[in-house]
Amino acid sequence: MNNFTFYSPTKFVFGQGEEKNAGSYVKQFGGSRVLIHYGGGSAVRSGLLDRVKASLDKEDISYVELGGVKPNPRSGLVYEGIELCKKEKVDFILAVGGGSVIDSAKAIGIGTLYDGDFWDFYSDKAVVERTLPIGTVLTIAAAGSEGSDGSVITLEEGMLKRACGSDLIRPKFSILNPELTETLPDYQTACGAVDIMAHVFERYFTNTKDVEITDRLCEAVLLTMISEVPKVMENPKDYQARANIMWAGMIAHNDICGAGREQDWASHSLEHELSALYDCAHGAGLAVICPAWQEYVMEHNVARFAQIAVRVWGCQMDFAHPEITAKAGIAALRAFWKSIGMPGNFADLNAREEDIEKLLDTLEIDGTTLGNFVKLNREDCEAIYRIACRA
Amino acid sequence: MNNFTFYSPTKFVFGQGEEKNAGSYVKQFGGSRVLIHYGGGSAVRSGLLDRVKASLDKEDISYVELGGVKPNPRSGLVYEGIELCKKEKVDFILAVGGGSVIDSAKAIGIGTLYDGDFWDFYSDKAVVERTLPIGTVLTIAAAGSEGSDGSVITLEEGMLKRACGSDLIRPKFSILNPELTETLPDYQTACGAVDIMAHVFERYFTNTKDVEITDRLCEAVLLTMISEVPKVMENPKDYQARANIMWAGMIAHNDICGAGREQDWASHSLEHELSALYDCAHGAGLAVICPAWQEYVMEHNVARFAQIAVRVWGCQMDFAHPEITAKAGIAALRAFWKSIGMPGNFADLNAREEDIEKLLDTLEIDGTTLGNFVKLNREDCEAIYRIACRA
Repeated sequence: MNNFTFYSPTKFVFGQGEEKNAGSYVKQFGGSRVLIHYGGGSAVRSGLLDRVKASLDKEDISYVELGGVKPNPRSGLVYEGIELCKKEKVDFILAVGGGSVIDSAKAIGIGTLYDGDFWDFYSDKAVVERTLPIGTVLTIAAAGSEGSDGSVITLEEGMLKRACGSDLIRPKFSILNPELTETLPDYQTACGAVDIMAHVFERYFTNTKDVEITDRLCEAVLLTMISEVPKVMENPKDYQARANIMWAGMIAHNDICGAGREQDWASHSLEHELSALYDCAHGAGLAVICPAWQEYVMEHNVARFAQIAVRVWGCQMDFAHPEITAKAGIAALRAFWKSIGMPGNFADLNAREEDIEKLLDTLEIDGTTLGNFVKLNREDCEAIYRIACRA
Repeated sequence: MNNFTFYSPTKFVFGQGEEKNAGSYVKQFGGSRVLIHYGGGSAVRSGLLDRVKASLDKEDISYVELGGVKPNPRSGLVYEGIELCKKEKVDFILAVGGGSVIDSAKAIGIGTLYDGDFWDFYSDKAVVERTLPIGTVLTIAAAGSEGSDGSVITLEEGMLKRACGSDLIRPKFSILNPELTETLPDYQTACGAVDIMAHVFERYFTNTKDVEITDRLCEAVLLTMISEVPKVMENPKDYQARANIMWAGMIAHNDICGAGREQDWASHSLEHELSALYDCAHGAGLAVICPAWQEYVMEHNVARFAQIAVRVWGCQMDFAHPEITAKAGIAALRAFWKSIGMPGNFADLNAREEDIEKLLDTLEIDGTTLGNFVKLNREDCEAIYRIACRA
C-alpha cells in the first residue's frame, strides 16, 4: 500500500424527498446567492427544479439559473456560467442533474474566482486554489461527481475532453434521492452502471502490491452492481435496487476504493476520444473500451485477472491454467454488459474503424505513454481500438 | 435501505513518517495553541511524542501537554484536561495515541466549550453544539475513533461506561502511520482486530432490508481482517499487513459500512460492563461477548447468518439446513479469534459468573430493551452472559 491522503468532506444526504431540503443545506454551507445549474427539460418537467427553488425560497435565498448543460459538457456554457456568477455576485452553485451538470458547475466554480481562463485548470497550466462552494442534487447514478474531486469538460475549440482534479472542488453537500432516477430510460441507467463499474476497474488494475482492503472494497462495489443492476432492468421502479446502485456510484468514485494504490485511467482516456468525436454516451463508450483494454493487458498480471474472475464473477479457479480463469472473467464482464443492453464494439456504437488514426491523434498521451498498469504507447492504443472494433 | 446522512470530513494522512507533518496539519486546520494529549510511556519512549513536538515547533505552534490516559479512559482526566484547556486558552487538541486517548480528547474538546458538566453529553442530558477541533496521531488499529463520530468515557463515580456521538466531534485530521503499530504486543494487536471486526458485526446484523452495498462493504472489511491479521501474528513487522488492518479499522467505524441501515450495539453495551467492572481490554471482552450474542440471536435471521458464513468465512452453504451453515460461521469466528490468542469465555477473561447480577444491574437498558436486531430484555442479557461463561 502506498502513502496517501484521503479527504472526502462532502455531506451526503440520502433518501426520498431530500431535495426539498436543498435550501437548508445551501444555508448551512454559507450560500446566500445561488446559481442553479441544470441540464435539459427533464428536471423542469418532473417538477424537480420547482421543488429545489421552493426550498431556496423557504430559506430566503435568492438565485439565478443557467440550464442547458449537455452530456459531455462544453466549455461554452462554462464561460457563460462564469460571466453570470461574476455579474450576479453568486456565492454558491447548486448543480441539479447528473455528472455533466456537476462537472460543469465545478468548472464554473473555479473559473469564477480565477482571473485567467478556466481551461488552464484542465490543461495543467494552473492548480486549483479556491472555488465557489458547490452543492448537488443528483439525478443519475453514474459519474460519481457528487462525491469526487474531479471534473471533465470538453473544449469546443478542437473538441478536447480533459479532466481537472482537486480536493477543493469536492461538493460541500450532495443530495442523493434514488427516486429521481426511476424515470431514466433503461439505456441511460445501463450507461451509468457501466461508468460506475469502470471507475472501479480503473482502480482495481494496479501494480501496487498488498492492497487487500481496497481490492475488497472494489469488489464490494462490483458485486453490488452485478446484483442490483439486473433488478432495475427488470423493474425500473425498484427503489431499493436504485438506492444500492446510487450509493455504490458514490463509493466507486470518491476514491475510498483507490486510496493508497496506483491507478490506471487509460480506458477513460481512450473512451474520452470516442465520446468527444461521436458524442456518444460516456458509459456506452466505456462498455466498448474496458473489455478491449482488459484483453490487451491481461497477460501483464494474470493472477489479478483471475482474482477478479473468481471473487467478482464467480468463476471457478483453474489452478493449472489461471489464464483460462482470467479470460472467463472478462467474458463474464462482456456478457453482463451485453445483458443490460450495452454496446460491445465500434459498430454497436456507430464508431468507425477508419477513424482510429483521428482518435489516436487527439489522444493525450503523457510523454509517450498512457496509463500505469501497463504503459501504453500509440501502437498499444491502436491495438486496443482494433480489438474494440472486432469484439 | 433507510434514508441517511453520511458526513466524514476528516482528512486522513496515511503512511510512514507522516507524524512529522502533524504541526503542518494543525496549522492548516487553524490551531495555534495546542493540547497534546497522550497515554502512557510508550509514546514518550519511542520518540513519537518528540517527533510530534518537533513538528509543532517547526510551525511555531505552542503547546501544553496532558498524558496519563488509560485504557477505558476516565472522567477524572477529562475534567483535568478541560481545566487545562480553559486556563491555557488552548484552541486545538492533538491526540497522540489509540482510541482511549482520542475519545478522551473528544470529551475534553466538547467540555472546554461547555458551561455545564461534560458528562451531560454522555448521559443524554445535552447535545453537542460545538467543540475544540481535534487532530490525531494514531498508534493502534482498533477503536476507529480516528474517523468516527463517537467517544466512550468511564465515569469514575459508579464506573459507568457511556458513549457520546456527534458529527461535530469527528477529527479534523488523522495521521495513520502503520509503522507506529509494529511494536505493539501481540495481545493488543489481537484485541484491536477484535474491536474492528466487532464494529462491523454491530452494523451487519440488521433488520433493514435491501442493503447489498453496505453488506458487501462490511464483508470487505471482515475478509481483509481474516487475511491480514494472521500475517501480523506471524510477523509483527509486516508493514503491509499492518497498513491494511489500520485502514480497515478506520473504514469499520467511520460509518461508511453502516449508512442507511439500523444498527445493533448490544454486544458493545454488554461488553462495556465487563471492561468497566474488570478493567479488561475492550477487544478481549468483545471476543467473549460477540460470539455468545450471535449464538443467542441466530434464529432471528438464519439467512443472514448463513450469508456471512458463506461470504466471509468461506463455509459451504447447506441449502437444506441453512442453520448448519449459520452455526458453522459462528464457529469459524470463534476459531479465528482463538487462533490469534483471544479469550473465548468468562474464565479466560478472569470474569466471574457470580458477578452477572452486578453486570446486569449497571447495564443501561434503554426503556426495557437493548439492541435492535433482537431487542434484548434483562433475561436475554443474562442468557448471553451465561453462554459466554460456558463457551
